[in-house]
Amino acid sequence: MEKLLYGAAYYDEYMPEERLARDVEMLKKAHMNVVRIAESTWSTLEPTEGVFDFGSVDRVLQAMHQGGISVIIGTPTYAVPSWLVKKDPDVLATTGTGRQLYGPRQIMDITNETYLYHSERVIRELISHTASHPAVIGFQVDNETKYYDTAGPKVQEAFVRYLQKKFDGDIERMNAAFGLNYWSNAVHDWADFPDVRNTINASLFGEFEKFRRKIVTDFLAWQCTLVREYMRGDQFITHNFDFDWRGFSYGVQPAVDHFAAAQALTVAGCDIYHPTQSHLTGMEISFGGALNYSLKGRNYLLLETEAQGFPQWTPYDQQLRLQAFSHIGSGAKMVEYWHWHSIHNAAETYWKGVLSHDFSENVVYKEACTIGADFERLSPKLCGLKKENRAAFLVSNISLTALLRMRSGGNVGYNETLMKWFRALYEMNYECDFVYADPFESEKPDDWGTVEAALYEKLKKYDLILAPALYAASDATVAALWRYTAEGGTLVSGYKSFFSDENTKVRHDRQPHGMTEVFGLQYNQFSMAENMMLSDGSGPLNGFFECLIPDGGEPVLSYAHKNWGKYAAVVKNRFEKGRALYLGCDLPEALLKKFLSDALTEAGVSPVLPGVSFPLIAKKALSPQGKELLFLYNYSENPAELPCPEGSFTELLSEKPVYGKETIALPAWGFSILERQ
Amino acid sequence: MEKLLYGAAYYDEYMPEERLARDVEMLKKAHMNVVRIAESTWSTLEPTEGVFDFGSVDRVLQAMHQGGISVIIGTPTYAVPSWLVKKDPDVLATTGTGRQLYGPRQIMDITNETYLYHSERVIRELISHTASHPAVIGFQVDNETKYYDTAGPKVQEAFVRYLQKKFDGDIERMNAAFGLNYWSNAVHDWADFPDVRNTINASLFGEFEKFRRKIVTDFLAWQCTLVREYMRGDQFITHNFDFDWRGFSYGVQPAVDHFAAAQALTVAGCDIYHPTQSHLTGMEISFGGALNYSLKGRNYLLLETEAQGFPQWTPYDQQLRLQAFSHIGSGAKMVEYWHWHSIHNAAETYWKGVLSHDFSENVVYKEACTIGADFERLSPKLCGLKKENRAAFLVSNISLTALLRMRSGGNVGYNETLMKWFRALYEMNYECDFVYADPFESEKPDDWGTVEAALYEKLKKYDLILAPALYAASDATVAALWRYTAEGGTLVSGYKSFFSDENTKVRHDRQPHGMTEVFGLQYNQFSMAENMMLSDGSGPLNGFFECLIPDGGEPVLSYAHKNWGKYAAVVKNRFEKGRALYLGCDLPEALLKKFLSDALTEAGVSPVLPGVSFPLIAKKALSPQGKELLFLYNYSENPAELPCPEGSFTELLSEKPVYGKETIALPAWGFSILERQ
Amino acid sequence: MEKLLYGAAYYDEYMPEERLARDVEMLKKAHMNVVRIAESTWSTLEPTEGVFDFGSVDRVLQAMHQGGISVIIGTPTYAVPSWLVKKDPDVLATTGTGRQLYGPRQIMDITNETYLYHSERVIRELISHTASHPAVIGFQVDNETKYYDTAGPKVQEAFVRYLQKKFDGDIERMNAAFGLNYWSNAVHDWADFPDVRNTINASLFGEFEKFRRKIVTDFLAWQCTLVREYMRGDQFITHNFDFDWRGFSYGVQPAVDHFAAAQALTVAGCDIYHPTQSHLTGMEISFGGALNYSLKGRNYLLLETEAQGFPQWTPYDQQLRLQAFSHIGSGAKMVEYWHWHSIHNAAETYWKGVLSHDFSENVVYKEACTIGADFERLSPKLCGLKKENRAAFLVSNISLTALLRMRSGGNVGYNETLMKWFRALYEMNYECDFVYADPFESEKPDDWGTVEAALYEKLKKYDLILAPALYAASDATVAALWRYTAEGGTLVSGYKSFFSDENTKVRHDRQPHGMTEVFGLQYNQFSMAENMMLSDGSGPLNGFFECLIPDGGEPVLSYAHKNWGKYAAVVKNRFEKGRALYLGCDLPEALLKKFLSDALTEAGVSPVLPGVSFPLIAKKALSPQGKELLFLYNYSENPAELPCPEGSFTELLSEKPVYGKETIALPAWGFSILERQ
Repeated sequence: MEKLLYGAAYYDEYMPEERLARDVEMLKKAHMNVVRIAESTWSTLEPTEGVFDFGSVDRVLQAMHQGGISVIIGTPTYAVPSWLVKKDPDVLATTGTGRQLYGPRQIMDITNETYLYHSERVIRELISHTASHPAVIGFQVDNETKYYDTAGPKVQEAFVRYLQKKFDGDIERMNAAFGLNYWSNAVHDWADFPDVRNTINASLFGEFEKFRRKIVTDFLAWQCTLVREYMRGDQFITHNFDFDWRGFSYGVQPAVDHFAAAQALTVAGCDIYHPTQSHLTGMEISFGGALNYSLKGRNYLLLETEAQGFPQWTPYDQQLRLQAFSHIGSGAKMVEYWHWHSIHNAAETYWKGVLSHDFSENVVYKEACTIGADFERLSPKLCGLKKENRAAFLVSNISLTALLRMRSGGNVGYNETLMKWFRALYEMNYECDFVYADPFESEKPDDWGTVEAALYEKLKKYDLILAPALYAASDATVAALWRYTAEGGTLVSGYKSFFSDENTKVRHDRQPHGMTEVFGLQYNQFSMAENMMLSDGSGPLNGFFECLIPDGGEPVLSYAHKNWGKYAAVVKNRFEKGRALYLGCDLPEALLKKFLSDALTEAGVSPVLPGVSFPLIAKKALSPQGKELLFLYNYSENPAELPCPEGSFTELLSEKPVYGKETIALPAWGFSILERQ
Repeated sequence: MEKLLYGAAYYDEYMPEERLARDVEMLKKAHMNVVRIAESTWSTLEPTEGVFDFGSVDRVLQAMHQGGISVIIGTPTYAVPSWLVKKDPDVLATTGTGRQLYGPRQIMDITNETYLYHSERVIRELISHTASHPAVIGFQVDNETKYYDTAGPKVQEAFVRYLQKKFDGDIERMNAAFGLNYWSNAVHDWADFPDVRNTINASLFGEFEKFRRKIVTDFLAWQCTLVREYMRGDQFITHNFDFDWRGFSYGVQPAVDHFAAAQALTVAGCDIYHPTQSHLTGMEISFGGALNYSLKGRNYLLLETEAQGFPQWTPYDQQLRLQAFSHIGSGAKMVEYWHWHSIHNAAETYWKGVLSHDFSENVVYKEACTIGADFERLSPKLCGLKKENRAAFLVSNISLTALLRMRSGGNVGYNETLMKWFRALYEMNYECDFVYADPFESEKPDDWGTVEAALYEKLKKYDLILAPALYAASDATVAALWRYTAEGGTLVSGYKSFFSDENTKVRHDRQPHGMTEVFGLQYNQFSMAENMMLSDGSGPLNGFFECLIPDGGEPVLSYAHKNWGKYAAVVKNRFEKGRALYLGCDLPEALLKKFLSDALTEAGVSPVLPGVSFPLIAKKALSPQGKELLFLYNYSENPAELPCPEGSFTELLSEKPVYGKETIALPAWGFSILERQ
Repeated sequence: MEKLLYGAAYYDEYMPEERLARDVEMLKKAHMNVVRIAESTWSTLEPTEGVFDFGSVDRVLQAMHQGGISVIIGTPTYAVPSWLVKKDPDVLATTGTGRQLYGPRQIMDITNETYLYHSERVIRELISHTASHPAVIGFQVDNETKYYDTAGPKVQEAFVRYLQKKFDGDIERMNAAFGLNYWSNAVHDWADFPDVRNTINASLFGEFEKFRRKIVTDFLAWQCTLVREYMRGDQFITHNFDFDWRGFSYGVQPAVDHFAAAQALTVAGCDIYHPTQSHLTGMEISFGGALNYSLKGRNYLLLETEAQGFPQWTPYDQQLRLQAFSHIGSGAKMVEYWHWHSIHNAAETYWKGVLSHDFSENVVYKEACTIGADFERLSPKLCGLKKENRAAFLVSNISLTALLRMRSGGNVGYNETLMKWFRALYEMNYECDFVYADPFESEKPDDWGTVEAALYEKLKKYDLILAPALYAASDATVAALWRYTAEGGTLVSGYKSFFSDENTKVRHDRQPHGMTEVFGLQYNQFSMAENMMLSDGSGPLNGFFECLIPDGGEPVLSYAHKNWGKYAAVVKNRFEKGRALYLGCDLPEALLKKFLSDALTEAGVSPVLPGVSFPLIAKKALSPQGKELLFLYNYSENPAELPCPEGSFTELLSEKPVYGKETIALPAWGFSILERQ
């Protein structure tokens, strides 16, 4: 039977002194029951070409096994040994600024044949060597894989072959689809295909990005195939997906199609890094968790999160506990720190682990011991939680890429918009899922009927769909959302959505393309606000806004401006059996929350705990026993009290009963778990 | 007989759907009578090497002709097809950072032989194919041509040959003229000539820039020669010169000698882009218009300006009308938008045209219709206006380059200084011309006597010359200005002027070199102010200032500072029959206006409309009928009233009479045109 | 007998007109008695390969000699002629961004054989030609030499040979010492050694920097060897060391081991550039002077400082005098301006000399004349001053490099920390020496016993040692400081000290490594403050801080913070016969001064002039006559008065007696020199 996993990435290879026995003791004392090993240690596993040395792996497996600690084996392919680069310098990716220089991780051309040949060999050696070991519970293929901006001649040749296939060899279809006539960029003979690294054509750029995200999907699937040849039936394959990065995990990862790439795995996994101290909000944990849970609609492995991390992330007392149980409440069935010990050399010396550089029992380790004990005790009730959400975000990497490229169109950030909307829901205690708008290869992306049907199937489970900044929407996406709304769903979307097709070609009919009836509006102008007020007296508004003209819908907000006052800012509509809301600009936070909560309420979606809002956050899940669990978190240094909901509960940490309308006290950075009886 | 032209750049090639017939209808409805086509469409005209396809050009010519719309044919050479780069990768310019990557426009080496060979062929094919068509009224050679930082080996070889010619093969004359002994940069054998891309010698750098501006002049002249072989006598050749760029047109173009390059054209042309909405001031329109008018001393073609442009430029109601008539009042005889339809793919998707992406009749199009109607009706009175200004700016690209390079000398920007002075005059309703200080090739630049005489001839027409930041002044320039003042002119100059010779070698006698008697002052120190006040209590002053020591002149302002108080900031002088004013620092706006208006008044130059100032702007011109026209503009969202000048007028828009001392009302962003009877 | 030298760098080669006779007259009138010539003029000395022309050198030597002016000959090797680069393009350094482009100085690979061959030849020619000339008093080898980021293949091959020697060919010792297993960076065969330019390993990076600083040491020593073959016994060899640069001289030079490189010279020398006008504080003069004096424990040559310099440095009246005597009071025996005349072309046109571009007698020249006269008169009393300081800074380039690299560890700047501490002492009128922590080659750096003993010998002369930001401390350094304190010294250190070993490997025992008993504290956590207050009510504190746990020591300051309040910020300790003070964070200036002055007082070190502080600065020295000299400076535009110390003095400028407790008046930017009778 599955149990909650708690542990850390463990690097015997990086130790400045013999530590193994002492570390196993300390892991056990902390009730840690899993370590991840071997990823990024290629130069140790294969010190020179063809010479393999699993001494370090073997002794760790043996010691962990003796200590009752499970092991996840990571393939070592995201950092290459110097001999491989000496052998073939093209192992290092050629990007827009030339060929990478040796040193950092994640600078390879993951399509390079030399790289793939040696990757396959080291993977086969490592997995065949370890798969049968009883301590090994699963495998992680590669690590936070991306395409590392690879764009060398061979990659570009493969891209041309990909385009030939996509357009059935008809180059004029490509010219038309991408609008390449502009600035003489049209190519009339495949042999004339130019270097794409500096293309000014957003469609060609977007396709190249899509092609390169496919490289990642294919690479991970290929590694999974290799691992599957050796793994036991009780073992899993995962990968630690990460997110976009603003100094911390933030929004959708632009370089990977998470949903497509996750298909080859048996269990989803991710890395979530977030601010702590007075900036700990739980938001990044909830976002990453919800997205990763959605990949397979079930529990995921948190493969990396910080224990101490950056100097500015050294946690306050109790924060490590709060964080660990925030992951669990989001649906994680493992919490694994990166990493066990702080590293004494190189790039991540100041990304500190559970242990500081001195290996002693510091305050963070001591707090981890309490988490491990609680995990162990509560595992039967907390491992295998089910999340059932009524609202979902529709996300799109094609739109993200397009908006990254189309800065001149009002500088609207895809992830910035998505995260504003997500934060609004999060702070109002609504949980949500994620649906991916871009079709997979396996979904026959060129067959609109199939794509539309597949997307509609995903959408129709929800009462409300949020589609922020859905810039590049194919006819199939438009049709699925049209049908979703017509059939009774509530659709919330807004500025910069539906503006182009899936090739980033701007639509040439009335905006929002195909959805004017759904939203009851149209527009053909937009501009940039400079401290513009809104009709309800709120503001000021800055940046991009659309000049909405209601056309059947109800204008519920407009601009307070001499020239723009004639246009609506927000339009609400009833469309056939459903409802639609369109936000024409980046609303002030309070207004955004108001419009979103109104739409949720009208769609019949309730918050987890009505009347309570950030910094008090509630999450709901079904336990393996089928009981409702309520997680209550206080992301604040101030103690708080909140009323217990109706009903009878057991508070799992204290194992005490709590009854509806009693007061639940949460200390600073504290939390509580209620099991409904 | 000539008529006002009104239209747009038209790209049949970029259309996502068949639009031609509908577009001709819409153009006609807007009273548009001209389109520019074909520039930047090389890959359409010559899809593969040597295969020409004028299908799109032909059908547009036919449709426009049937609709009564004239066509300007642009040569397509500013963006190259991919096959040309495959054929010879050196078609792409090698700059200081290596060879350019394919994709953007304007990245070629315009001296590359392969490029020139194929350019010539496509130009000959296009022009011979279209020149006889009755719709074609003229040609535009290339587009906003510059040298694109080309600096590859062949360009540098040509530069060495140019230097050998300039110095009659005497390399030591070059070493002396450029001061190359410094840091061992002297070259004592032409064979040792080093790469100049990273030179630290401002003189060598300046000469290379001059050489590269000559590349532009020669390239445009060469294209004109080709076009002339085919064009009819009733057709014109123009080019769309642009300006320096600060997110909008701003100051003198550093990469092109406008006056020299304009010699090969039959009519001057330019592109002016400017902020709108609350930032619409008309200043950029007046600056670009005055400079372009000055190129040939007569009307010019406004080949490009924005209709909607960037999102932040979407015009307020009435602004498009105000802008169009601002160009006319500056002496334009054409107003052409870039571009007709907003583009659905690539780099300028968000540089919107007259039509939005949906091709419908948006508010901008509707306003354009009223402009077209007014242009058509008023064309007999507004086409062919004469400007007669009494003041002129003396501008110099050699000085501009030198000051760009000499940032360490106080960070004085050439265009920043020029534009401050221009703005001061503009806001006080003085119109002015532009004279170019740098001699052309055809003016025998090495014969100082000839150069001086030629410059003096240009200057003596004016009552007042403004020479801001004239850093690099040759002996001939100095002599011409000396004589201009001695003979009764008024000269206004200031800091950083006359500091070096035409080779950017700093003068080694007392500053301002050769002009100490003219200005009645001298100095040999300067420094940087930090919030320094001035003797009249105004300030604070920041940045560069000179320590002027009056020597015959009258100190009319000094610095209020413990250490610098002994020096003058502004000195006024009478010199022989003329007057001179020298501004030793970047004065606060109000002081600058005061000193400039005093100098203008003393020189007998009056504003167009005394007592009226920005946002109310007046322009004056002579109509083809020889009548005085007054254009009155209100660059403000507030309606305004102003008194009609003495005399009897017809207000041309309303066709009503107006008499002196009546009040003229201008609505928000409104204007009025008075024809003196 | 030695005399004070006063003069300027003189470039006959750069003159735009014949000036030599007139310049000698002007130098003499200013009582200048030395010029430096010939550095940076290689293309003049050897215009084409193998052709030498000493015409300019000869005529300057002759004219100066006739004028009674001494000459320092500089070797010309820091700027290469173009013919040398044509001959071998690899003369230009290959750095992390490719090969340098010709133009600037200091872009060579100073290990390139072609460069060295031709350098040797031109040096031999120049020195053999000039050494016997009676005007020549000494030589400057090269100019502000650094390694110019040279990192081409040959440099990297040499680095691998250096590593092989360092690790006795045992590559696994290197892997262990540098922790290269991390991210697969371990190298198991010397033949696999990768490009190091982009290494992520701070230890390997640090070693490469150390290796490249050794290139500089070796290069200068090699030039000295060449010069010694020709020089007379009465001549000196020097070099103009410079400092780190923040727009002015600031802190320890990261690219040169000053102490090691100075070994080959007969006299230390340096270049000090500093802000003037209202920003003139004397701080940079004192820092650079103290460090340069410490190189050999005796007087140094100030080879370059600005006369006018940048426009913003044009000195106020009296500042040039104050600056000159500030250098003398710091122990300089020469003050030489860079440079005599402002240059009319190229990169440093606006780094103005004594003369402006017009060569006339400007205000700066006139003030220089008074300095020259005073130097001449007072030379017997001011030339050959002895400094005897009781406190010293311990500095380390290895630590500097490590902290530059380890930005993620809290963004602690080495020089920023050092300069804060130095400024605190300076403003309280404490003078100090500098001791270099990193062992030289000649000190057998691998023999810890020898290194420790050598360092201890240097330290034990002082009552107090300041060791800020001593990040990378070897076991020998730790042992020497331990012993220094145990034996009665006072040690002041602080955050980020002792954190790693000399290979930038973080220590894996309790921090501060090896010094927990000395400081009476330990810690294993640190974080970043955001506006955190301190327990004495001061603050706010921002940035890096350590969580100090007193362990025998006395916590004298702690943090005022809910979570961090349990830790100390500053700990004071008595250790055996000595005292120790540890500052756990970047204290507010007043607190820093308080703790430092308390420590100095307890260590028995007094300020030069108690009760007086910046802008009034006092320096002390022993005259050649063995008399105590007090220099009193007023770095302010406000006149000041201060009490004369106990005793009888002669004021040397006025030659008047002054007695203890009389009042000494210092005018704006004034100074006074008291000789104790």
